[in-house]
Amino acid sequence: MSNAPILLTPGPLTTSLRTRQAMLVDWGSWDRDFNQLTASLCEQLLTIIDGATSHHCVPLQGSGTFAVEAAIGTLVPRNGKVLVLINGAYGQRLAKICKVLGRAYSTFETAEDQPTTAADVDRLLAADPSVSHVALIHCETSTGILNPLPEIAQVIQRHGKRLIIDAMSSFGALPIDARQIPFEALIAASGKCLEGVPGMGFVFAEKTALAAAEGNAHSLAMDLHDQHAYLAKTGQWRFTPPTHVVAALHEALQQYAEEGGLPARHQRYADNCKTLLEGMAKLGLRSFLPAEIQAPIIVTFHAPNDPRYQFKDFYERVKAKGFILYPGKLTQVETFRVGCIGVVGAAGMQAAVDAVADVLREMEVLDI
Amino acid sequence: MSNAPILLTPGPLTTSLRTRQAMLVDWGSWDRDFNQLTASLCEQLLTIIDGATSHHCVPLQGSGTFAVEAAIGTLVPRNGKVLVLINGAYGQRLAKICKVLGRAYSTFETAEDQPTTAADVDRLLAADPSVSHVALIHCETSTGILNPLPEIAQVIQRHGKRLIIDAMSSFGALPIDARQIPFEALIAASGKCLEGVPGMGFVFAEKTALAAAEGNAHSLAMDLHDQHAYLAKTGQWRFTPPTHVVAALHEALQQYAEEGGLPARHQRYADNCKTLLEGMAKLGLRSFLPAEIQAPIIVTFHAPNDPRYQFKDFYERVKAKGFILYPGKLTQVETFRVGCIGVVGAAGMQAAVDAVADVLREMEVLDI
Repeated sequence: MSNAPILLTPGPLTTSLRTRQAMLVDWGSWDRDFNQLTASLCEQLLTIIDGATSHHCVPLQGSGTFAVEAAIGTLVPRNGKVLVLINGAYGQRLAKICKVLGRAYSTFETAEDQPTTAADVDRLLAADPSVSHVALIHCETSTGILNPLPEIAQVIQRHGKRLIIDAMSSFGALPIDARQIPFEALIAASGKCLEGVPGMGFVFAEKTALAAAEGNAHSLAMDLHDQHAYLAKTGQWRFTPPTHVVAALHEALQQYAEEGGLPARHQRYADNCKTLLEGMAKLGLRSFLPAEIQAPIIVTFHAPNDPRYQFKDFYERVKAKGFILYPGKLTQVETFRVGCIGVVGAAGMQAAVDAVADVLREMEVLDI
Repeated sequence: MSNAPILLTPGPLTTSLRTRQAMLVDWGSWDRDFNQLTASLCEQLLTIIDGATSHHCVPLQGSGTFAVEAAIGTLVPRNGKVLVLINGAYGQRLAKICKVLGRAYSTFETAEDQPTTAADVDRLLAADPSVSHVALIHCETSTGILNPLPEIAQVIQRHGKRLIIDAMSSFGALPIDARQIPFEALIAASGKCLEGVPGMGFVFAEKTALAAAEGNAHSLAMDLHDQHAYLAKTGQWRFTPPTHVVAALHEALQQYAEEGGLPARHQRYADNCKTLLEGMAKLGLRSFLPAEIQAPIIVTFHAPNDPRYQFKDFYERVKAKGFILYPGKLTQVETFRVGCIGVVGAAGMQAAVDAVADVLREMEVLDI
């Protein structure tokens, strides 16, 4: 098991043995001990955004996308309209969710290396008063780009509109303070920067908005109003929780606190990202984004020009040396991605860079 | 960890250490090794129902209810109508799903100790030609009652209607052969009789029906047509899979085969159920259902009459002796439930009966 490769992917990622060992116990989902675990989990999650007075934390079974869909379906009224800000695949997915759910929406798309700006949002909201909600990807995993959340949130509040943030790949590593950034919902998941295992998401939902959301949802299982109401009343999840995933996330949160919470997690990932960028630059591998809009979560690199470079072969060879990379997600440019998150430090990132160097040599990839 | 209580609950239940240890590895969700795990999982699941030629196995993130909702939302066209057969809380939930999803439906409800009969269904379908689908709970976990699936399925086929089976608590332990029982969908989950951990469900969907279901779904995340199409094309789950839960279920299926598959699993649970019923009868505890409609999955017992009996106290005391019981779910009668499923045998069930006997003595519960 110690021979398992390090996952340099944006979640699932490499977790600690301690987190995985927390899954060696079977929990009764109705039992008081498990209810306490859930309560402690939600409380710790709320602390990370300083949101205990303003927001509820509503856990949900399934992947992060389930939680994003649940947030839109529950919080956007059937006669609401969502302005979706897009600069990558996850923004596109937000728009698709609105479409499938039958919520009115419009989109604003910038290039994949172009953050949405507060001025864009100001102009768009002034032009369309029918918009009730704005949906934003904080860090777009397609490229690793960071959108300017604080500035955009202020503009949205000034227009009296509501903000839904998909913070899937940033939550826990990049600071978001609910007392300073006004938002109706923020969505993240277990298997990302908190370094738990995948299998559950959670939505921080503004208390008043959630209370007013009864009957909005398009789905029974994804109704966050009902999910929260049942949890508040009974201490239990409404439907069978992924007990082992919950236990793993709880254990991961203990380690998060022990490491020093968000500042420490942020610093480690920033160091990982720096080691990666510098090391790859030495090999001639260029990152797709300029440094000022690069979040320390996942980095997109241009593929080498050399025809001897084939991603599949490259991937398998790097994997054999102990590191799992991630394919690119851009349609116009050939790229690959390397995550900076998970239980890995700068030494591990340097080892990954060394593995990449060795593999490029083995493959005789010269024209980088 | 060996001190964790045995879960005599209808899932989550007690799993083997080997199954839990399968969660000690982190998997890349894009990686070939994980794709093979998923493919092997679906293949083994299809074998259990002999369904490889007729059905696809579509895995889905979340609890069993997510998979039930996904099956109804994907397979019942928007102008379809569902006849929901109810004799407990899970039948009620099927009706609620239809309501929330905006599918037309009617209900037929029998008492909680009364199976739906094929004659009922014959009469109902003759009376309402607008019904397109019939939804049935195979074993209703509210009580443990078994509905006569083969007879009902034949009647539905004779009427040219389609059957959706919630087999959550029976799949893997009670025989269902897709070559003999005509159904459009059968739904189950990881954390039940297969003895995996909770966190994913799966739907066996008739191939032609699934192919025709494009665009039906009310949800992006729960669209089984798209989930299957993507899996068939790429070998990957459409959205992040609960990798550790998948690995645990895969390991649990290996043990299922080693034990002797469905006949052996059925026999062990039947022995568990017999040991439980006989042991509890000796203590004077009466089961709610007559033996002929009692599935060997979970047994509902009448609570003792004695005012010194309080469920919470009883539960905590039995738990302290190493067994977690389950509360009753009936509105009219005070009951409690004991599961017969999970990694436990007749000796374990006898030990649970002995623990119950000791606790009733300690509580001075005399009038049983």
